[in-house]
Amino acid sequence: MNIFEPHLFRQQFPLIIQHEKAQIDQHSLNPALVYLDNAATTQKPEQVINSYQYYYQNSNANVHRASHQLSSKATSAFEQARSSVQKFIGARSIKEIIWTKGATESINIIAQALARNTLRLGDEIVLCASEHHANIVPWQIVAQQTGAVIKVLTLNNQGYIDVDSIDNVITSKTKIVACAHISNVLGRINPIKSVIERAKHVGAISVIDGAQAVAHLSVNVAALDCDFYVFSAHKMYGPTGVGVLYGKEALLESMSPYQGGGEMIKTVSFTQATTFNALPFKFEAGTPNIAGVIAFSQCIDFLAPLLADKKQGYSLYEQQLLQYCYQGLSQIKPVKFIAEGMPDIGVIAFTLTGHHNHDVAMALDSYGIAIRSGHHCAMPLMTYLQLDGCLRISIAAYNTVAEIDYLLNCLHSILQEEGGDNSVLVKQGKAESQVSLSSSQLIQSAKPAVQTMDDIIRLFTKTKGWDSRHREIMLLGKKLPRLDKSLRNDNTLIAGCESLAWLQVEKNIDGSYIFTADSDAKIIRGLLVIVLAAFNGRNAQEINQVNINEYFNTLGLLQHLSPSRGNGLLAIVDKIKLLAQ
Amino acid sequence: MNIFEPHLFRQQFPLIIQHEKAQIDQHSLNPALVYLDNAATTQKPEQVINSYQYYYQNSNANVHRASHQLSSKATSAFEQARSSVQKFIGARSIKEIIWTKGATESINIIAQALARNTLRLGDEIVLCASEHHANIVPWQIVAQQTGAVIKVLTLNNQGYIDVDSIDNVITSKTKIVACAHISNVLGRINPIKSVIERAKHVGAISVIDGAQAVAHLSVNVAALDCDFYVFSAHKMYGPTGVGVLYGKEALLESMSPYQGGGEMIKTVSFTQATTFNALPFKFEAGTPNIAGVIAFSQCIDFLAPLLADKKQGYSLYEQQLLQYCYQGLSQIKPVKFIAEGMPDIGVIAFTLTGHHNHDVAMALDSYGIAIRSGHHCAMPLMTYLQLDGCLRISIAAYNTVAEIDYLLNCLHSILQEEGGDNSVLVKQGKAESQVSLSSSQLIQSAKPAVQTMDDIIRLFTKTKGWDSRHREIMLLGKKLPRLDKSLRNDNTLIAGCESLAWLQVEKNIDGSYIFTADSDAKIIRGLLVIVLAAFNGRNAQEINQVNINEYFNTLGLLQHLSPSRGNGLLAIVDKIKLLAQ
Repeated sequence: MNIFEPHLFRQQFPLIIQHEKAQIDQHSLNPALVYLDNAATTQKPEQVINSYQYYYQNSNANVHRASHQLSSKATSAFEQARSSVQKFIGARSIKEIIWTKGATESINIIAQALARNTLRLGDEIVLCASEHHANIVPWQIVAQQTGAVIKVLTLNNQGYIDVDSIDNVITSKTKIVACAHISNVLGRINPIKSVIERAKHVGAISVIDGAQAVAHLSVNVAALDCDFYVFSAHKMYGPTGVGVLYGKEALLESMSPYQGGGEMIKTVSFTQATTFNALPFKFEAGTPNIAGVIAFSQCIDFLAPLLADKKQGYSLYEQQLLQYCYQGLSQIKPVKFIAEGMPDIGVIAFTLTGHHNHDVAMALDSYGIAIRSGHHCAMPLMTYLQLDGCLRISIAAYNTVAEIDYLLNCLHSILQEEGGDNSVLVKQGKAESQVSLSSSQLIQSAKPAVQTMDDIIRLFTKTKGWDSRHREIMLLGKKLPRLDKSLRNDNTLIAGCESLAWLQVEKNIDGSYIFTADSDAKIIRGLLVIVLAAFNGRNAQEINQVNINEYFNTLGLLQHLSPSRGNGLLAIVDKIKLLAQ
Repeated sequence: MNIFEPHLFRQQFPLIIQHEKAQIDQHSLNPALVYLDNAATTQKPEQVINSYQYYYQNSNANVHRASHQLSSKATSAFEQARSSVQKFIGARSIKEIIWTKGATESINIIAQALARNTLRLGDEIVLCASEHHANIVPWQIVAQQTGAVIKVLTLNNQGYIDVDSIDNVITSKTKIVACAHISNVLGRINPIKSVIERAKHVGAISVIDGAQAVAHLSVNVAALDCDFYVFSAHKMYGPTGVGVLYGKEALLESMSPYQGGGEMIKTVSFTQATTFNALPFKFEAGTPNIAGVIAFSQCIDFLAPLLADKKQGYSLYEQQLLQYCYQGLSQIKPVKFIAEGMPDIGVIAFTLTGHHNHDVAMALDSYGIAIRSGHHCAMPLMTYLQLDGCLRISIAAYNTVAEIDYLLNCLHSILQEEGGDNSVLVKQGKAESQVSLSSSQLIQSAKPAVQTMDDIIRLFTKTKGWDSRHREIMLLGKKLPRLDKSLRNDNTLIAGCESLAWLQVEKNIDGSYIFTADSDAKIIRGLLVIVLAAFNGRNAQEINQVNINEYFNTLGLLQHLSPSRGNGLLAIVDKIKLLAQ
C-alpha cells in the first residue's frame, strides 16, 4: 500500500469529515465546508487532537523537575518531541531546537537576543519584498533600536526573489538577511540557497522563515546551512501556540537570554550574578506549552513519513490539486493572478477584475467555501504589486478535485449573478463612483432609502442561514446611494481590514442626526444599511442608548462581525457615537 | 445542592479518576497516585480537556481575519474567552487583558516593554525575598540593561512580607514594585494591599504575580488597584501555554509593543512608519494559542462559580485539607516547617531533619505520592532561610483526607525504614562525612564494591516496578563508600538540580580508569553505583563506546532520569567521558 492515499488521508481530519457527514445527513448536494484557507492554519488530524486527551488524562505534570514519576513521564514525552523535531529538520543537536509559541516569536527572539546586541548604526538588515509582517516588523523594531537600516530584495515577474538583485542588495554592510522559504501569498519556493550563500559570503546571519514550507517540503537545515530556521506547528497540521526556533548551536550560545524566569537559569541570587542554564533551556523561561509540544510531536509522526516517502504520493497529490485549481482559475476571464505562472505550492493569489476581494470572499463563504481576502499580513507586497489586497486560495492534501470543481462553479455563479449589476461595481483599487450627485442631493435621496431597525429585524427573522442572509445583505447594499466622490476623503474614511468605508454626518434642526455612508465593498455597503438603520434620525441621547450588540445578535450577525478588525463595522459604530456627541 | 461537593469535584478530573480506577481494578489497597504537586501545575477537569477536541473538530481556523464563517466562529470563541477573564478578575475593559504564554512571559513583557524604556541609572526595583525566579530574573535583566538597582522586601517569621519593611524599602527612588500575591513555597497571602498603596504613594508601578493566588482566591484587580496582575492558566486547572497579563489601560497604551508581527499592526510599510494596532492586539503578535485560550475559558467557567460561591464550600474544603495535613505533619518529630505557623493556602514547605529532601521525595514517589523537592524556583528564598532546599506538599480541592492520611503514613514508614540506618544519613545542609578515609584508602576500598554492568542488569531484570527498583537503588547506594571530605570540593563538584554530587578519577598504569563518586542524596548515591558500573575499569576508547542510554533503557530507568537537570546524572556521564579524554 502507498504511504499516502488521498481518501485515507482526508479521513484523518475530523473537522473535515464531520462537516461532510452533516451535509450527507441533510441530503444536501453542496458541501457544507470547503476549507481552502490552509496557509492561515491547517486542520488537525485525529492523532494530534487525541494527544491532548491522552496527555491530560495520563501524564500531565510540570516538566524538568523530576522528583516524581508523572513529571518524569511528561518530561520524557516533552523532550522526545524535541528529538523528533531535530530529526525532522536535520538539525545536529537537540540544543539547536528551541520551543517558542510560533514562528513570529522565533523571529522576535533572534531580533532581540541577537540583533539588538550586535547591530550598529548603519548596519543593514536585508529582507524580501514579499515578507510576512512577522518577518518585517521585528526587524523594523530592532532597526529603530540600533540605527540599522532595512534593505529589500526585489522580486521577478514570477514572484521569486530576483536572483540578480541578491549581489547588489546583500553587501559587506549587511549583517542579517531574513527571508521566507516560501511567501504566504505568492507560493513560490524562493532561491534561498543563493541567498544563504551570499549572506555567508559577506559574513551576514541568515534567517529563514519556513512557516509556509514545512508542511510541503522536506527541509534539511544542515544542507541549507542557514543560521536560523523558524516555523509554526499550526500551519503544518499541528496545534496552535507552538513554534520552533532552530539556530546553529554556536550562535545560540553567543546570544543573551530572551526572557528570564524559571527553567532558563542555573543559579539565582540577589547578591551574586545569576547564571543561566545550558541550551536549549536558556531560551525557555517558565512552564512551556507542554501539552501543545507533545501534540506537535504527534503531528511530526504524522507528516514526516509523507514528506520522506520516495514515491512522493503526498507531494504529487498536492501538485495535482494545485494544477487543477490553477488551470480552472486561468479559464475564468476576470481572474488576474498576482504573479506570472503557476505557484510551486498550493497557494494561489489573484484578484477578480471589477469585483471587490471582500465581496468575492464573502460570497464564496455563503457557499461554504473558506478562502482569504485582504493583505494577508504582507502589506508591503501589496504596495509592491500596486494592489489593495487580493484573494488567496490555499490547498492542503485533504482537499479534493471535487472541492476545487465546486469552488470554480461557485466563482462562475458569483460572476454571473454580479454580471447584470455592473453599474454598482467598484473597480478594484479605483474607488471611482459611478453615481455623481452633490452631497446635498445625496442626503436628500438617502432619506427615502432609510430603513428602520424594525424593518431590518423583520427581514432577517424570516431569512434563515448565512447564505440567505448574505444575499439579503448584498441586496440591501444595492439600495444604499453612493456617497459623492468629494465626500470619500480622509476626513470621512474609516479603514477596516479588508475594505474601505466612509461616514458622513448631518445634524437636523430638531437635534436628530442623518448619517450617510459608503464602502468599496458591496457586503460592507449592505452592513452599513443595517447599521445606519439603528442610528439614523435619532438624537444624541437616543444614539447613545442603542444596544448595537443586542441588535446584531437578534439579526444573527454577531458571528460574522469580527470583534477586532474584521470588517471594521464596530469601528463605524464607535465613530457614529463619537460624531453624535 | 451545594455548588461544591468534594466527591463530585474530584470526579471531574480524568487523570485522578483513571489512576484510582486502575488501582481498584488491581485490588490494591494503596492509591496508584496521590498528586500533591498542585503548585507546580494542577490536573485538568474534563471540560477543559474536551474543549480541545470540540474546538479542533468544530471551529478550528485562524482568528481576527473573518472572511469566512469558521474564522468568525473561532474569533468569537477566542474573544469570548477574553471577556470571561476580564470579568473573572474584575478588569474594566477587555483592552486590559493580554494573552501571553504564561505568567513568566507576562512579567517579561512589563520588564522589556515598560521598564526598559523608562528606568534610569539608580532607579530602584523592589522585589520580595520570597519571589519565584519568574519575578526576579526579568527584573535583574532589565536592571542590568538600565543601571537600575534591585532592593528586597524582607519577610517576617511567618513568611509574610514584613509590613514594617515596606516603608523603608519602597522609597521615592522606587520605580517598580513586583511581588507575589502568594509565594509558591510559603503559601502565605502577602499584604499586597499595603505594598500597592505604598507603591502608589511613591509613584511606583505595582506588579503582582498572581500565579499561586488565582486558583484559591477571588481576585479583583480594580479593588486591589494594582497596575499589573499576571497569572498562568495551568496552575488554575487550565491548559499549559496560556497566561494573562492584566494591565491598566493607560499604562498598556503608553508601552511600546513587545513583539512585532501579524495582528499587532495597523499598517506596515517599507517606506513609511509602521503603525500599531489598538489594545489588546498591540501585544499579541502572530497567531495566538487559539485552542489553549478557548480551553482556558472553559476553566474559568469551571472555577469562577466555586470562588464566587457565598457558601465557600470550595475554599472551606481546601482549608480543611490544609489544616489536616499541617497538623499531621506537625506530629512528625523530624518535620521542620520553613516558616512559623500554618500557611494560608495548601502549600506546605518543610524539611525532615536528618534526611535529604531528594531522598524523601523519591521514597514518597515509590509509594505513588507526587510532591516536589528542591529550590522550587526560589533560590534566593532558600538562601534567605539558609536552606539547601525543601520539600513542598501542595494541595488541590480534588485531594482527599484519605490521601493525606496515606501521605502521613508513608512518611512514618520512610522514617522507620531509615531509622535503623542513621549512620549513612547526611545531615541536611551539612555535607559532613561520617566515614573518614584518606583518598588513597578510599580508592582501595572502592575497588571491591565495584559492580559490573552485567551485575546491575541482572539485578534489575528480576526487579519489577519503580517502588522495588527504588529500594534496590537505595540499597546499592549504601554500598558506595563515602568520598573523603577533602575530595568533595569545587573541583570534583557536579551540581544537579536537587542534590550535590562529586566525581573523582584515577588512571591506572594499563590506561584504565577508576571513578569514585559521592552525593549528599542517597538515591543519587545508588544511581552513581549504576553509572560507575558502566565505566569503571575501562580505558578511554571503551568509555567512549558505552551506550549509556541503552543501558538506562534496559534498566527501565530512562523515565526516572530527567533529560535536562533532574538529578544531573547525565551531566555526570558527560563529565566521566570528558575526564577520560
